[in-house]
Amino acid sequence: MFKGKTYIITGIADKHSLAMYVAREILRNKGKVICTGLGVSKFHKNLSERAKAFLTESHKLFTGSVKQELGEDVETHILDVTLPESIEDFCIKLKEKDQRIDGFLHAIAMDKTIRNKVVKPLLEVNFNEFCDTMEVSAFSLISLTAKLKQHGLLNDNASICSLSYIAAKKVTFHPYRNISIAKAALERITIELADELGRQNGIRVNCVRFSTYLGSKAGTATLTTEDVEHAGTKSPLGNATPQDLAYEVAHLLRPGTRITGEIRHVDGGYNIMG
Amino acid sequence: MFKGKTYIITGIADKHSLAMYVAREILRNKGKVICTGLGVSKFHKNLSERAKAFLTESHKLFTGSVKQELGEDVETHILDVTLPESIEDFCIKLKEKDQRIDGFLHAIAMDKTIRNKVVKPLLEVNFNEFCDTMEVSAFSLISLTAKLKQHGLLNDNASICSLSYIAAKKVTFHPYRNISIAKAALERITIELADELGRQNGIRVNCVRFSTYLGSKAGTATLTTEDVEHAGTKSPLGNATPQDLAYEVAHLLRPGTRITGEIRHVDGGYNIMG
Amino acid sequence: MFKGKTYIITGIADKHSLAMYVAREILRNKGKVICTGLGVSKFHKNLSERAKAFLTESHKLFTGSVKQELGEDVETHILDVTLPESIEDFCIKLKEKDQRIDGFLHAIAMDKTIRNKVVKPLLEVNFNEFCDTMEVSAFSLISLTAKLKQHGLLNDNASICSLSYIAAKKVTFHPYRNISIAKAALERITIELADELGRQNGIRVNCVRFSTYLGSKAGTATLTTEDVEHAGTKSPLGNATPQDLAYEVAHLLRPGTRITGEIRHVDGGYNIMG
Amino acid sequence: MFKGKTYIITGIADKHSLAMYVAREILRNKGKVICTGLGVSKFHKNLSERAKAFLTESHKLFTGSVKQELGEDVETHILDVTLPESIEDFCIKLKEKDQRIDGFLHAIAMDKTIRNKVVKPLLEVNFNEFCDTMEVSAFSLISLTAKLKQHGLLNDNASICSLSYIAAKKVTFHPYRNISIAKAALERITIELADELGRQNGIRVNCVRFSTYLGSKAGTATLTTEDVEHAGTKSPLGNATPQDLAYEVAHLLRPGTRITGEIRHVDGGYNIMG
Repeated sequence: MFKGKTYIITGIADKHSLAMYVAREILRNKGKVICTGLGVSKFHKNLSERAKAFLTESHKLFTGSVKQELGEDVETHILDVTLPESIEDFCIKLKEKDQRIDGFLHAIAMDKTIRNKVVKPLLEVNFNEFCDTMEVSAFSLISLTAKLKQHGLLNDNASICSLSYIAAKKVTFHPYRNISIAKAALERITIELADELGRQNGIRVNCVRFSTYLGSKAGTATLTTEDVEHAGTKSPLGNATPQDLAYEVAHLLRPGTRITGEIRHVDGGYNIMG
Repeated sequence: MFKGKTYIITGIADKHSLAMYVAREILRNKGKVICTGLGVSKFHKNLSERAKAFLTESHKLFTGSVKQELGEDVETHILDVTLPESIEDFCIKLKEKDQRIDGFLHAIAMDKTIRNKVVKPLLEVNFNEFCDTMEVSAFSLISLTAKLKQHGLLNDNASICSLSYIAAKKVTFHPYRNISIAKAALERITIELADELGRQNGIRVNCVRFSTYLGSKAGTATLTTEDVEHAGTKSPLGNATPQDLAYEVAHLLRPGTRITGEIRHVDGGYNIMG
Repeated sequence: MFKGKTYIITGIADKHSLAMYVAREILRNKGKVICTGLGVSKFHKNLSERAKAFLTESHKLFTGSVKQELGEDVETHILDVTLPESIEDFCIKLKEKDQRIDGFLHAIAMDKTIRNKVVKPLLEVNFNEFCDTMEVSAFSLISLTAKLKQHGLLNDNASICSLSYIAAKKVTFHPYRNISIAKAALERITIELADELGRQNGIRVNCVRFSTYLGSKAGTATLTTEDVEHAGTKSPLGNATPQDLAYEVAHLLRPGTRITGEIRHVDGGYNIMG
Repeated sequence: MFKGKTYIITGIADKHSLAMYVAREILRNKGKVICTGLGVSKFHKNLSERAKAFLTESHKLFTGSVKQELGEDVETHILDVTLPESIEDFCIKLKEKDQRIDGFLHAIAMDKTIRNKVVKPLLEVNFNEFCDTMEVSAFSLISLTAKLKQHGLLNDNASICSLSYIAAKKVTFHPYRNISIAKAALERITIELADELGRQNGIRVNCVRFSTYLGSKAGTATLTTEDVEHAGTKSPLGNATPQDLAYEVAHLLRPGTRITGEIRHVDGGYNIMG
């Protein structure tokens, strides 16, 4: 299905990351993946020792997991979507190797107003926190796409897929306030880009709302075992698995279809319950 | 993907039918299909000569197309969803051959209030016309599923997919009134069954809204070339193709995932436009 | 707000009926109401003794409640929306008195597949039960509107409002299957008529989804005290009250606005919760 | 309806502003309004001469229109939602006069990526432009509410209403990209606050999507006469009027109801068309 096609996979932290399952599914279908993750780059200014240590550790885990799970020859890159220079640098590196991109998975989100599974009330969120969450979790879909296009790296008829969550539509039962606004923005960006890029270059842009998932770093930061069980019980089929998501994303990335602007659920039917 | 799995494909009229593309995609992925279509059965009472001729001709076209497009060995059955005895008879025949079913495509719709691309105003539709359209286009999803289950023919974790249209949500620019209500009912049935059957048997039920399509008998009856062009222009990627739909349905029928209760679009992005 | 305007109020069973609150709000704003309810009519054929007794009792309660709550001079009529002759007869009576109608509240629903707060699985519902529920709960919006228009009783720029329930969109936590499909159909009819009648006569058609409500006959038949408490707890403001609904319907009936095709919630925010 | 109640009305630029119609409707129903608008404040740093002139002119128009349309005694305040000190100062002034607030209309939006009815493609929007639009058009709902609550100015059971646009859901036919994302965020904030504030203080938060409207400053900046005519033709009842909107907002502000978290349309039915 993906023979001769290359996809960027963002958002791999470790082997449990949802993005890892997507990358593996692409490889299984003969595609090529280029993975991006956290790490210290020359564009980080004034990093604290703690931040530096965190990034170094993250990078080690990211690259180690990719090698082990996806193969030694899979390219990895440091990418920090909050640093325009980092996106630029990533694109230049792709260009130097004459890479052409047929799509990517946007699986990046961050919200510092959730800590230890406790969320700040929305009325206590300040504009910096609001913007930081927006930049990482929503605007990055614009900035990454824009840079790839600017550098002529994104092929016509490419396919882009982002990950959202039911919280973009409904108030969740678990801590989730500020980030729900960024997810709503991400979905709106998905749809506007589906129109803008669809007409220009036949590029598709879609989005998937996945079940609560404790396996990933994001899940661990916000969910308890009880939360996940509660969601599982409420879903007619129980919570969906990362592999279910991988099938869906692979289907959306499949070259040549005319599916775009979709906000879909892979959630065992959770969202149909009132 | 479908090795050892068997799917019923309803709604094949000729080689241009959407259901034909789905059947072919299943075969391509090593699955088996059983096709149902129109024809004279012993359960039809008091058929007029004209009706009999129509059914005979339909059956010839249906079976001929299946043999030619899908292979000589593909089973075909007469199925009239408005006759409980016909559904019963179909199930008995499956049972006699020890068939077990892993899902089906519901691609059946009819609305006699649209004639020659002209639609009756809703206020002129009488209750018989309303019920007839409901029975064929919506209730048949219940009746067919119920009979298959009653006869123990439907495997656990089976997957059911039905075809709807954007008119279930929005007022269309082309003639479409009474049938839009049946489509809304069909979508609601899809979701209620996703819950009911999901919890009981792990069975999935999903629905796809496809682009305007002139190729099918239904399309010819309701759409003009201009309608289809208009929809194509409005869609960021142009109208989706039957093959796009086939990929989607095959994805939804895929054994083992936890995707259910979805109402999805395969429409080139038509539905995102305001 | 309603000076010189006349509205038909269907669905009054007793003083706790939601329709009663709407009627009272219209009177409070200087409008006139004409109430319809159950009763034995000459169009009922072959009524069993039990059915006759039920209808007689219902009629007594209906007319008694109207007199007591709304005033001695408020007109009451027997209307059975499943009998075309009954709708016809009602229209003729309006005509004889030279009534002109500025809108109506459709508050009629029935589903015999819910008994003693237990609901039939959808797969066990037969086509008769499906159609009966559709006829009373959804198609009646078409048939009543059509007859009123046919007889020239419905003024241009009239406003029609129907009552739906969140179950038209989401699977409820309490017994509710077959009727959810009729509610989905009712909402679709609302929207199609908003287009059809809006363009022709400036007539508005809207719909409100109200909180679970135990006070009405329909509520008593399907809900327990625990159900209503559960919904109340889940709603940010608790369950909405019948008076909240009355304000909303009165607002939608208000002469001269351009609000149409709306499916709205008066539910304390219940529907925003995931 | 609003006797003894006080509402803040933001977003009045001149007598054609939508907010002006809402203010007038509140006065008509015996409520009190406090109006905020643009103007030079001591919190503006490094204003260019051009900016200063613009603000001075805006303030003159704002206060003049309020006096003329709403009465000499209606309070006006300068409020710039991008300056926390300005919001703070406004609250202090309210406090000094012992004002208590029963709700407000949020009618503030700005997007510099639309100029002379031409819009920047989303891929050309930079993060500053994205954030500026977000701050004014979406985050300000949080910051204004938070400050009012912090100062103890917002009564329990108050009602807040914001103005959105169909573009939060659908791609518009007229120039509108970046701002659609802010509108989606605004709607999400509305819903999250409906939950957060509803449970805490019984405060309601709702949102209305209004028709295209050329009369306001925002309309003039983005719409042509043809755009408005096109929307009017597509809407079953034609475009809604500012007075239609005023009725809706007044209804949502009405003390004591349990309607919250709603995203409603006052648009002549525009949104129901496919």
